[in-house]
Amino acid sequence: MHSLSRSVRLYRGLSRPVGRTTRPLWASVSRSLVLSSQRRIPEFSSFVARTNTCGELRSSHVGQEVTLCGWIQYRRQNIFLVLRDFHGLVQVVIPQDESAGSVRKTLCEAPLESVVQVSGTVISRPPGQENPKMSTGEIEIKVKTAELLNSCKKLPFEIKDFVKKTEALRMQYRYLDLRSSQMQYNLRLRSQMVMKMREYLCNLHGFVDIETPTLFKRTPGGAKEFLVPSREPGKFYSLPQSPQQFKQLLMVGGFDRYFQVARCYRDEGSRPDRQPEFTQIDIEMSFVDQTGIRSLIEGLLQYSWPQDKDPLATPFPSLTYAEALATYGTDKPDTRFGMEILDVSDVFRNTEIGFLQDALSKPQGTVKAMCVRDGANYFKKKDIESIRSSAADHFNEEVLPVFLKAKRNWNLPVSQFILEEQKLELIRLMGIQEEDVVLLAAGEHRRVCSLLGKLRLECADLLETRGLALRDPALFSFLWVVDFPLFLPTEGNPTELESAHHPFTAPHPSDIHLLHTEPDKVRSQHYDLVLNGSEVGGGSIRIHDAALQRDILTLLKEDQKLLSHLLQALDYGAPPHGGIALGLDRLMCLVTGASSIRDVIAFPKSFRGHDLMSSAPDAVPPEELEPYHIQVTEPAGPAERRLLTQAATRLQS
Amino acid sequence: MHSLSRSVRLYRGLSRPVGRTTRPLWASVSRSLVLSSQRRIPEFSSFVARTNTCGELRSSHVGQEVTLCGWIQYRRQNIFLVLRDFHGLVQVVIPQDESAGSVRKTLCEAPLESVVQVSGTVISRPPGQENPKMSTGEIEIKVKTAELLNSCKKLPFEIKDFVKKTEALRMQYRYLDLRSSQMQYNLRLRSQMVMKMREYLCNLHGFVDIETPTLFKRTPGGAKEFLVPSREPGKFYSLPQSPQQFKQLLMVGGFDRYFQVARCYRDEGSRPDRQPEFTQIDIEMSFVDQTGIRSLIEGLLQYSWPQDKDPLATPFPSLTYAEALATYGTDKPDTRFGMEILDVSDVFRNTEIGFLQDALSKPQGTVKAMCVRDGANYFKKKDIESIRSSAADHFNEEVLPVFLKAKRNWNLPVSQFILEEQKLELIRLMGIQEEDVVLLAAGEHRRVCSLLGKLRLECADLLETRGLALRDPALFSFLWVVDFPLFLPTEGNPTELESAHHPFTAPHPSDIHLLHTEPDKVRSQHYDLVLNGSEVGGGSIRIHDAALQRDILTLLKEDQKLLSHLLQALDYGAPPHGGIALGLDRLMCLVTGASSIRDVIAFPKSFRGHDLMSSAPDAVPPEELEPYHIQVTEPAGPAERRLLTQAATRLQS
Repeated sequence: MHSLSRSVRLYRGLSRPVGRTTRPLWASVSRSLVLSSQRRIPEFSSFVARTNTCGELRSSHVGQEVTLCGWIQYRRQNIFLVLRDFHGLVQVVIPQDESAGSVRKTLCEAPLESVVQVSGTVISRPPGQENPKMSTGEIEIKVKTAELLNSCKKLPFEIKDFVKKTEALRMQYRYLDLRSSQMQYNLRLRSQMVMKMREYLCNLHGFVDIETPTLFKRTPGGAKEFLVPSREPGKFYSLPQSPQQFKQLLMVGGFDRYFQVARCYRDEGSRPDRQPEFTQIDIEMSFVDQTGIRSLIEGLLQYSWPQDKDPLATPFPSLTYAEALATYGTDKPDTRFGMEILDVSDVFRNTEIGFLQDALSKPQGTVKAMCVRDGANYFKKKDIESIRSSAADHFNEEVLPVFLKAKRNWNLPVSQFILEEQKLELIRLMGIQEEDVVLLAAGEHRRVCSLLGKLRLECADLLETRGLALRDPALFSFLWVVDFPLFLPTEGNPTELESAHHPFTAPHPSDIHLLHTEPDKVRSQHYDLVLNGSEVGGGSIRIHDAALQRDILTLLKEDQKLLSHLLQALDYGAPPHGGIALGLDRLMCLVTGASSIRDVIAFPKSFRGHDLMSSAPDAVPPEELEPYHIQVTEPAGPAERRLLTQAATRLQS
Repeated sequence: MHSLSRSVRLYRGLSRPVGRTTRPLWASVSRSLVLSSQRRIPEFSSFVARTNTCGELRSSHVGQEVTLCGWIQYRRQNIFLVLRDFHGLVQVVIPQDESAGSVRKTLCEAPLESVVQVSGTVISRPPGQENPKMSTGEIEIKVKTAELLNSCKKLPFEIKDFVKKTEALRMQYRYLDLRSSQMQYNLRLRSQMVMKMREYLCNLHGFVDIETPTLFKRTPGGAKEFLVPSREPGKFYSLPQSPQQFKQLLMVGGFDRYFQVARCYRDEGSRPDRQPEFTQIDIEMSFVDQTGIRSLIEGLLQYSWPQDKDPLATPFPSLTYAEALATYGTDKPDTRFGMEILDVSDVFRNTEIGFLQDALSKPQGTVKAMCVRDGANYFKKKDIESIRSSAADHFNEEVLPVFLKAKRNWNLPVSQFILEEQKLELIRLMGIQEEDVVLLAAGEHRRVCSLLGKLRLECADLLETRGLALRDPALFSFLWVVDFPLFLPTEGNPTELESAHHPFTAPHPSDIHLLHTEPDKVRSQHYDLVLNGSEVGGGSIRIHDAALQRDILTLLKEDQKLLSHLLQALDYGAPPHGGIALGLDRLMCLVTGASSIRDVIAFPKSFRGHDLMSSAPDAVPPEELEPYHIQVTEPAGPAERRLLTQAATRLQS
């Protein structure tokens, strides 16, 4: 029983049902829709011609006169027709008697995927003809009238879940792709979860939904912000990456519980699985501390969690940034499985193995180990090779696989220099079993943790390829990561510091005294929410003290003029405040088990930022650029070239 | 009793309470917040340090230990302090005994509008010191501890509702302006109404909330669309004016009940009371007709209507476009008052009055009359003059005020040419009373209706200035206007036609046969929702037939390539569909009685499109334009000039 329900969940967790009937997904869509309102089943047939949806008819409806609207999914020998809407499928009996000639003609001649409206009576299927795989399988419709609402031309692909299509084709015909049960499920579930979040925030906890502008001015370091030319020469709006400044200003304005399902923009050029516009559940509160925000979010997710999944247990576990790095080699660990990193420097103080010796002789040098349980059973020899070369190729580091008790022994020659007492100590420390593989790496703490963190995920991928189900897709392991550093060395210039997150993040109260002496040691009041190895949210307690904010901006060498309004606001009775933003696209992607965030967005862009359906972005005639006082610099054609030359001539004369 | 409640409503309808205590508004904010969730009172103190909000404490709380956070509103003789949060005001007693020195110091020295946290006991006020004007007036807080959370510097203006400030100052310090009871009320009510709308759509009627892209490509005739340069030379996204195409594509995709609280963009340069970004409640349904959409919207508004106002009666009345024009001279009539226009051409067939004779001699010539009831009692002579000159100045038309039965007779000399039988006929037709004023105008039907429609509103303004309450601000007169023309003559070229609304609007079924013979006679299936003389919504049944859509685009000479994806979608089994969009900013402005939509938007732009707080839009250094392959054409400074010259030189060489 348990394993069946688990397999249903696993199945539902797949991004695309392949080679199966659509029943389970349609069924789950309608089930969760019913559950969504708890108080009352939503009325799907109000205001329209139909009396019922296709998926809802059961034996209890037998005898009722119904009108249905839908798409022709399937037709069998001009006797039966299967009608589909978002709610499910229903069988319609095509009348065979003379008098129903026009109805028969309509239903038999319409191409598949045509839209029809039928009226008739719900009848029981003849005994033996029930279809238990279909939720409406006990009944069928004895049709009296039928109207072709719209005919369908030959489709570029069939609307069947088992028909595979390339993503490019799906995107080009997104409006057809949206008819798939998977896209219907994903987008309807998204709508429901967001609605539940709103109920939790607005109705249960008094949050105010406030819309903030998206035409704003560029923020310091806002290099990834899209620009929007205005009609004033040389003046541009920018599309902000988040409502960060506005939410803080709302706190100053006395809206002490704000939220918004906010559209945000980030121009990162071509990045797989990122979108130029994305959505975040944006939250800010006054008079709150980290604990308060964490409880709020735990309650929010628990309340809005889909009813067809196991309920979430709260509070979520938490790790400090330092712990996450040391144990999992990353600040967003996938805690659905173990394989933790262990510092074994002390075991190897007297080692004769060169690269371990080397590492330990340096100031921050460490030796770390990671145990792949049962690895010798699942890995092939080439897997071990691939792990070693991955370390060498991507990290320029050596990693030493060691089989301490395994029968299949692919130990490298160098392993013989591990002394027996070191072996015993490792076995003791790590609880090594017979078929376990240990990966040893050495070097500076952060670097070697990071290496083993990446290898941990590679090992997990390999083990799953080899048949070990390591990461249960039905398991949702939320984790808080806290106590991040406030500053990080600037990329390219390690002697300078930049904000690890953003310059409004408050330092940890117990570290403020280090701000000017050892700024790299200052922890922040930033927190990340991690789910199954992905960051799904992040936030912080903000600086509400103008002097401290100025101090930190000075330290960061940021242009304070760009933030003068915010600094001034902090002077005028700003309450202590903090907040968080959840990445809705990423969260929905993990919840639905989709293979890409594009599967939880109705009209996503390709990884190059294109809309393959409408072919946006698009060329714009020069006269439409004129009101904005801009022109294209890369000469795209003779027209632009001519314009540019004319303008320059005018200038020079 | 009735007049009292009416005056409270009138008061609440004012955009800015002047010279009164803030009590009524604070009280109404908290009352409607409580009403908002019906099932359960929202918990405003979860997750934070406070135990209660400032406005909620009553005698029933006496004896409770409470912690409050808020702003210092007022201090009296270092004995009392009034603490404020969004929920209301509460009196805190500053302890006077020696042992409480530090608490006293904190509370007495903090400047007004500083943020403090106080803990103490709720006690009854001494007999006789209760304040019935304050909702917490029966109690006060005997404080034990106090903490200054943030001090406040000298403010640019006092946070008191009766302190008048210019709008520019309010905008510059918007975060302070937001602390006013009016802005708190407006934005909180907006949040609540939208939440109720979502409940109605999502939970009660199975609508799916789907986010559509705002980075799109320009639509035909999209001259008012902001452009967003992409990283591909010469390629631009545009910010759409509405999700029109996407919502139709969602219907094709089988999401047959879609809604979105959609951010939209329109670049109209400087226009008072318009915003470059605005919000609409965007709705689309399949298998629906006009009646269905109208019922849906009536139910939606009824369900979400604020509880402190009279409930809405449904169905809303409706007028055809032709009726609205003939009766009120506009397609968005304010039906809170009468003063209808009447065609009196037949009365004047044999007139000797020149301008009436002239008009009637022309093919479409008419004479129209409008009766200003009691006008002679309220108008001064200069009002009559102002009406006449307004007609002459703005319309280049003559209007003849006639006093048919009035004692105060300001008839113009020309009035003597109105024959006695004509007078009697007018009196009979229009039910003229003693003090009524009749305005006569003549000319082509549409033009003269339009003139009298404008004068109708001018008369209403004048009458209200003179003390007649003509338009009750507590009255909400919704009205549907239907049967619009499908096409209108193109501005500037009256021989060509353009869409009256947009090219996706379906023609009226009974007029389709006129499409090619008399297109100007074709009515559309467009409908507008009008409230108190403002258009607050509009929509239509759309064309779902690809051939008809192509036909109409050809007729309109639109570039079909730009819409090829939509045309193709209609070919692939598009269901019949229709929808509507409500202008949320305008609606909230009317509901709250605000004087401008800027008062229902947290961070609005000035009428020139500026953010006066952050000074957006702003200059951008040339190097930040480079990734987008654009440059500024209007030489804003030497840097741009140099760049342009260099580029041109490179091209020429």
